[in-house]
Parts: sequence; C-alpha cells; structure tokens
Amino acid sequence: MRGTSMAEQKATNIHWHEGNVTREERQKNLGQRGATIWMTGLSGSGKSTVAVALEQVLLQRGKHAYRLDGDNIRHGLNKNLGFSAEDRTENIRRIGEVAKLFADAGMLTITSFISPYVADRDLVRKIHDEAKLPFLEVFVDCPIEEAEKRDPKGLYKKARAGQIKGFTGIDDPYEPPKKPELHLRTDQLSVAESVQKLLDLLEARGLLRA
Amino acid sequence: MRGTSMAEQKATNIHWHEGNVTREERQKNLGQRGATIWMTGLSGSGKSTVAVALEQVLLQRGKHAYRLDGDNIRHGLNKNLGFSAEDRTENIRRIGEVAKLFADAGMLTITSFISPYVADRDLVRKIHDEAKLPFLEVFVDCPIEEAEKRDPKGLYKKARAGQIKGFTGIDDPYEPPKKPELHLRTDQLSVAESVQKLLDLLEARGLLRA
Repeated sequence: MRGTSMAEQKATNIHWHEGNVTREERQKNLGQRGATIWMTGLSGSGKSTVAVALEQVLLQRGKHAYRLDGDNIRHGLNKNLGFSAEDRTENIRRIGEVAKLFADAGMLTITSFISPYVADRDLVRKIHDEAKLPFLEVFVDCPIEEAEKRDPKGLYKKARAGQIKGFTGIDDPYEPPKKPELHLRTDQLSVAESVQKLLDLLEARGLLRA
Repeated sequence: MRGTSMAEQKATNIHWHEGNVTREERQKNLGQRGATIWMTGLSGSGKSTVAVALEQVLLQRGKHAYRLDGDNIRHGLNKNLGFSAEDRTENIRRIGEVAKLFADAGMLTITSFISPYVADRDLVRKIHDEAKLPFLEVFVDCPIEEAEKRDPKGLYKKARAGQIKGFTGIDDPYEPPKKPELHLRTDQLSVAESVQKLLDLLEARGLLRA
C-alpha cells in the first residue's frame, strides 16, 4: 500500500461538477446581474463625470461595477490602433467585446467613449443581444457650443486650430442615437440628477436587485 | 421660486467624491484582491479541466472568478485574428490586456490558452507587473505522448494527418516556462490535487483572504 501524500489528503475536500460555471452561478455569487451601460456623446458632454459618479454610487450600494474608458483601454488593449476609419471601428468593437465579457462575469460595466457612429454602437448592441446580456445605450447630450465652452482637455481648441484632424463635432460627425435607453441633457441636469436617472433605469430593468 | 422636480428631490441623496474609484475600494467591496492565473501547456495537457474545476471551487468558497478561454475569446474579441505568427502574438497580447482589466476589477481571472511562446507570456507578465497586479504562470505539463493519447478534441489526429498546420508540439514548438509560479504534472496528479496546489499557491500569495 503506497502512502498518502499531504496533497492527496487535502485534495479529498475538493469537489466540482462536470461542465462550466454558469452565468447564473456567478450572478448568485455576486448578488447581481451583469449589464453594460454604454455612454456616448461629444467630448466634453460629461460622459466621464457621470460615469465616475455612477460607479461610486453603485459601490456605495454594495454593487460591483467597473469602468472602461480611454485611460485603461487606449494605452493597453487598443494601443496598436490609430484614428483611421477602420481603426476607430475596431476600437469600439474591441471595447464592446470586453464590455460583454465583464457583463457576462456579472459586473455592471460602464463605458465612456465618444463612439460617434450609429453602426459601431449597433454592432456592440448586437454583440450583447446575441449573448443575452443587457445593453443600455445612454446618450450624454449637450449642445456642442456648451461642450466646446467646457473643453476640459483643451481638445476643441486644438481641433479649431487644425492641430487635431477628424475631431468629432468639428470636422467629423457625431451621429446621435435614435432610440437610446436614456437621454441625459447634461446642460439641464446636475451630475446627481443624471446619476439618479441612471439608477432609475437600472432599477426599472431589475439590475439593482440581488 | 421654481418648483423642485422629483429627479431633483431624489438626487439630493446622491453623493460622490472627486476622482476615480480606486482599485482598493473595488477590492474592499468584493472582499478579495484581483489576480491573473495564467495556465499554459500543450493541447490536451488538462488546462481547461483544471481551470474549470478551480473556478468552481473558488466560487464555492465565496470568491469571484472568471475564466477566459477559447470559447469566449476566439469567436468574440479575437475573431479577426488568424494563425500567423503576428496574429498568434496579438491573440495572447489582447488576452493578457483583458486579463489585466479583470484583475484590476478585483476578479480572480483564470486563462487557459496553449500560449506556447516564452516571449508572448513574458509580455503578459510585464503588462501585469507594470499595473502592479499579481500574475501567476502555471505550467500545465504532461508528456506529449500522453496529451496525444487523450486528444480530447481530435486535434493531434488532424495535425498528424497534415490537416492542421503549425500545431503546437507537432510542427510548431512549445516553449516551457523556465520559472513558472507553479508546475503541475497532470499525468501524475489528479484534478483535485492540481486544484489543491493552485489553492495553496493563492493562499500563500494572500489571494484567498478578504
């Protein structure tokens, strides 16, 4: 009779079943369902401000959220993409695929990218629909005059000076969503009001319950 | 005096602070630290079997885990990649970047891809090191004769018949890790024993504590 090793002894407490962990098992474990909250709008419209505030408020309520934005995508996953038409489309496609994975993992996933083209956003919606995951398109809207006045990153100034080409709203179009799940007029709402409207939407979709 | 809307009233309960949610805040909320557990090894070595069992056992212990594998990557994020040398490298780079995001979100992220080249795996390690996130390389190892005998997907048979070109272990090299965080000989260990060794590693790194 051969001896029983420590690893063998401890391993007798390890049990699992055939097949993969299901999305439902992960959701039960996290106490929430995953979804993607896709913010779209002009530079300076307030996407990031609202996204950051929403993420904080969700965490305060014990929910698990993660934000995809230029900071963690452009210098990582999409660092090998430029600003050609093909690369912009591929940029949004990859972000959409990653958001889908996070939603599948059970996270409330908040993206904030200009994502100016209807076709690109519709592709991301399709990716989520096919995966049977909620996709909430949020139009973060304010008049371009207001966005340009805010100009938090000084990008409109550079675009007007011709230092940036193909800038959305200046020499490249922004195609507004026709039927977004939520339309936020950030020139008329406070950040708190915008977050409240997002919470109302999530609540209505059953995404804030355990 | 203008009236106060319902949204304005409810919004008075919304509070947040300047700046982004930190990794530490997300970790506290989830009750765990994120990390990437990177399984590498031949086709048929047991990567997926061990990964699936580990994911289940982590969930049983109330931990939050997510698995990246061919099923959710090849038909989604990396559907536009083929099997050229460049595309294989880009395949692993993107998976590494996504694993980093999941680890940043606080998830115990388990990847199971052959990932045969040292340079590609080292790049993924660097991505994690730079983000100050734990990267645990796990060499899922068995003799190729054994892997070929198992041949769960019938791929070795096709490779031997010349129907698949550039198949790892047949006509493309597998470069074993020189200093993996864990070396599992799946021809000598049961699945339960392999999972136990992974749990021991996670415990030793402080990744199973709240």
